[in-house]
Amino acid sequence: MQIGFAGLGNMGFAMAANLVKAGHEVLAWNRSKEPVARLVALGAKEAATPAEAAQAGIFVTMLADDASTRSILEEGGALAALKPGAVHVCMATVSVAFAQEMAGRHAEKGVGYIAAPVLGRVNVAEAGQLNILAAGEDALLDRVQPVFDVMGQKTWRFGAEPERANAVKLASNFMLVSAIETMAEASAMVAGHGVAVADFLAMATSTAFAAPVYKIYGEAIVQQRFEPAGFKLSLALKDIRLALEAAELARAPMPFASTLKDNLLDGVAHGEGHLDLAALSKVAARRAGKG
Amino acid sequence: MQIGFAGLGNMGFAMAANLVKAGHEVLAWNRSKEPVARLVALGAKEAATPAEAAQAGIFVTMLADDASTRSILEEGGALAALKPGAVHVCMATVSVAFAQEMAGRHAEKGVGYIAAPVLGRVNVAEAGQLNILAAGEDALLDRVQPVFDVMGQKTWRFGAEPERANAVKLASNFMLVSAIETMAEASAMVAGHGVAVADFLAMATSTAFAAPVYKIYGEAIVQQRFEPAGFKLSLALKDIRLALEAAELARAPMPFASTLKDNLLDGVAHGEGHLDLAALSKVAARRAGKG
Amino acid sequence: MQIGFAGLGNMGFAMAANLVKAGHEVLAWNRSKEPVARLVALGAKEAATPAEAAQAGIFVTMLADDASTRSILEEGGALAALKPGAVHVCMATVSVAFAQEMAGRHAEKGVGYIAAPVLGRVNVAEAGQLNILAAGEDALLDRVQPVFDVMGQKTWRFGAEPERANAVKLASNFMLVSAIETMAEASAMVAGHGVAVADFLAMATSTAFAAPVYKIYGEAIVQQRFEPAGFKLSLALKDIRLALEAAELARAPMPFASTLKDNLLDGVAHGEGHLDLAALSKVAARRAGKG
Amino acid sequence: MQIGFAGLGNMGFAMAANLVKAGHEVLAWNRSKEPVARLVALGAKEAATPAEAAQAGIFVTMLADDASTRSILEEGGALAALKPGAVHVCMATVSVAFAQEMAGRHAEKGVGYIAAPVLGRVNVAEAGQLNILAAGEDALLDRVQPVFDVMGQKTWRFGAEPERANAVKLASNFMLVSAIETMAEASAMVAGHGVAVADFLAMATSTAFAAPVYKIYGEAIVQQRFEPAGFKLSLALKDIRLALEAAELARAPMPFASTLKDNLLDGVAHGEGHLDLAALSKVAARRAGKG
Repeated sequence: MQIGFAGLGNMGFAMAANLVKAGHEVLAWNRSKEPVARLVALGAKEAATPAEAAQAGIFVTMLADDASTRSILEEGGALAALKPGAVHVCMATVSVAFAQEMAGRHAEKGVGYIAAPVLGRVNVAEAGQLNILAAGEDALLDRVQPVFDVMGQKTWRFGAEPERANAVKLASNFMLVSAIETMAEASAMVAGHGVAVADFLAMATSTAFAAPVYKIYGEAIVQQRFEPAGFKLSLALKDIRLALEAAELARAPMPFASTLKDNLLDGVAHGEGHLDLAALSKVAARRAGKG
Repeated sequence: MQIGFAGLGNMGFAMAANLVKAGHEVLAWNRSKEPVARLVALGAKEAATPAEAAQAGIFVTMLADDASTRSILEEGGALAALKPGAVHVCMATVSVAFAQEMAGRHAEKGVGYIAAPVLGRVNVAEAGQLNILAAGEDALLDRVQPVFDVMGQKTWRFGAEPERANAVKLASNFMLVSAIETMAEASAMVAGHGVAVADFLAMATSTAFAAPVYKIYGEAIVQQRFEPAGFKLSLALKDIRLALEAAELARAPMPFASTLKDNLLDGVAHGEGHLDLAALSKVAARRAGKG
Repeated sequence: MQIGFAGLGNMGFAMAANLVKAGHEVLAWNRSKEPVARLVALGAKEAATPAEAAQAGIFVTMLADDASTRSILEEGGALAALKPGAVHVCMATVSVAFAQEMAGRHAEKGVGYIAAPVLGRVNVAEAGQLNILAAGEDALLDRVQPVFDVMGQKTWRFGAEPERANAVKLASNFMLVSAIETMAEASAMVAGHGVAVADFLAMATSTAFAAPVYKIYGEAIVQQRFEPAGFKLSLALKDIRLALEAAELARAPMPFASTLKDNLLDGVAHGEGHLDLAALSKVAARRAGKG
Repeated sequence: MQIGFAGLGNMGFAMAANLVKAGHEVLAWNRSKEPVARLVALGAKEAATPAEAAQAGIFVTMLADDASTRSILEEGGALAALKPGAVHVCMATVSVAFAQEMAGRHAEKGVGYIAAPVLGRVNVAEAGQLNILAAGEDALLDRVQPVFDVMGQKTWRFGAEPERANAVKLASNFMLVSAIETMAEASAMVAGHGVAVADFLAMATSTAFAAPVYKIYGEAIVQQRFEPAGFKLSLALKDIRLALEAAELARAPMPFASTLKDNLLDGVAHGEGHLDLAALSKVAARRAGKG
């Protein structure tokens, strides 16, 4: 199957490489050319422009955000280049509003549009073990399922409207950030009573909260190890902003998300945007006078 | 070892029964006499008053809250009856301020005071598998460790000041309530975009949030099954109030906890105090106009 | 002085009418033609397109929001039509980011850009008694000051960067909405203790809070009179969103604004978006179980 | 009329002095004796104990809080000393729960209980210009009205249950603190866009917010003048805590009050508890990275 692929950042490269290794003919485009060369070395073909990559029957995009995705679709000519009957699989974490707009614009052209953001970091992507959150018409999903099967361990389907998958992705990231804030506040409180945060989190993440996310971030909080950042605080701020936008569209108050935005902003205002999300614990400690 | 035991509610009875079964001589008191009779049938002795139960060398209390614990210590005469060299193990979820006061008042009498609230519901208590959060002087903790070993799978020690264990217990319950609120908000948001909450939570609790607490409460949210209540919303309100009091003593802002109090209050104001904590999802849905 | 004027809604019409009455030559454009006809009857000239109106040396725009302002500037051709040396005075409540963008794009063309949102409702505009919040280069402000003097009782200057005036306008509206929420929460609380809200607000707005804004909205809360809406709840939601966007650009956490957004959203989710902002009192009462 | 008066702090002394000057026979008690001596010099009589002061037919108390009021009533013997038919006028800012308890305990003894907290600082008290927020049985209020008329410019009545006046007082203080936080957040935001806070607040407090409370605190914020404290931040924290307790009794969520508590706590944690409430602006600025 010929697959166009635009966006070879760390995640995108790992995903595209798996497609190449699985024998797919990958037509790859990226703004900077170095990762394209690496992928070509694995067997891919280079597309000179996003439009060229979009001429494949399946066009996968894995850009950073709304703006960069819009850029390759509009200025990059990819949207115009997509042929009737083709399908565009947008795997980036974009906004619900963007997905709604794109679903409409693709439909007008007779092009399928699937939203399929993913859960998992780079090592998970490399292992082909992502969880793929997908939404779009069933027939389209069936058609690209083999592509998903190469990149992920499981595809979760959320219905025909593509933006649903984006809402789910943003809700998932909200849950993650919320878990970190919860540990941060709890730790600041017990520390204020003289409890060693290491003791507290060792207990909490061995009992009711024995989940990887709590263990990994709890460890980072205890060791105050915020670099290298697995998930940058500034990117968490972006995702929480998108979650709040999705909430506003759904008319659903999300007071936790609102608090998260304020606290992430506090972190960014203190020059901590480049640190790992676990640095929310610094915000909570600082507010308690232990900055 | 002779052990006085006051407070035979569901949790207390299960804990005391295990002590009896393990061969300890339990001198039991409870306000209503029915559970005392059941425990006597297992081999315990009845204490006519809290004071009588407090004459054992180890005195365990498992009452509902500050007020009821204070009542048996003061009006019930238990504090006066404790002998120098005895140790009082307070296993209830009481406030940090109460623990501080009691630690001081016991010390004045030459009586040891240990705070040892527990994690786990009735079935866990029956199985002797509680997690025990303990704080107090090491020598005292060593002395009562055999008692803990009968009731719990593990004892976590948090230092010499008893109130630390209470701070940890309140922080743990805060984490629990926070996790439910997180699922409630995320579910209301995705539902507003047409996603089936069952699909969303099935995914979330199978991936990053594959922890029992998320699975159990997530199931309750999906099925809108709030009775019988495993953890009543009104009791969660009490615990969050205590967590906020502990936070104020520690001068640690806890904006998530503040939001939780408001939302739990919203639930209570709508006659949902008797429902399970999972009914926080009703609050989030109602605010989104899906009440 | 020839003045182009685009946007003859209730506010814009009142402002433009005062310019006509003061003897200015007003070249007016509006999407719907009825208000243009009314203004022409007063002595204005009709502009067939936004571009035509923009050919005057001073071009005032008073549209509803970013999108409609952008529309007349881009599709409507006004930005292209502005001549070097002209000045565009944007008096709408637009976002800080929009003002920044426009300041730059006008500067590239050698066209001046002033942000000058206003405080005051329609009757105040009719009386020429607006408070004008202005920012832009001093020389430009001096040039349009005579225009401001016709429309307003006072012009407040906030410096050379136009977006500052927009930040101030959004901060002002935030203060207004915050005052209403404050009364709403306080009223719900005292009502829960049996106090008549009328008695409470009569006292509060006669003592420390004897300001028109408290008196007017307090009266609406007491009488539960939410129609006709002086300031629609849904528009307050828009302005609070813009205030939060401005806060994010400034990296300033605004927890009150975050709470306002959630509560306004709660109102909109309950079909109250068309009501006056005072309906925030319905949200507070509903949450307290008195819905 | 003979009036017992307990509590001669700055406020209490000013109020009691006015009673003496108006010709009332004041029987005064205070923990420290210096203010008693000053009042005796004006014509009052000294009461050796709270109990002695409570033997007058009207007994006014103006202590710092629940604990100190309880102390003179219980350990000080005042409650026991009150005679059937007497009336106790509690003018301190105490909790709603305390007022409810005391109303009941006084009623059991056939003693009237009136809650009458006041609005106004020391200079207002000295001028006899307080606003008195009163609740209790009408007949009792009528009886003490002459006493109120000496101390205040106006008495506002809120019904027969005494605690209502306390709820109103706490709601009023909440409104005050909320107004300061509003200015603090708005100022941090506009400052982040380069606006001079002095310019912003000069405008805001001359237009929609032209009320003394905004002008006075706005001035303090602009000048960063937080000492001497007119209303200490730590006392504001106490009052907001009491407001939240009143809200919980009324089952009324107050998210603004919750945010205020967190922010006041942030201030206290940074050693700012002794500063004036206007120092909430320091908290907002610090969170925005301008600490």
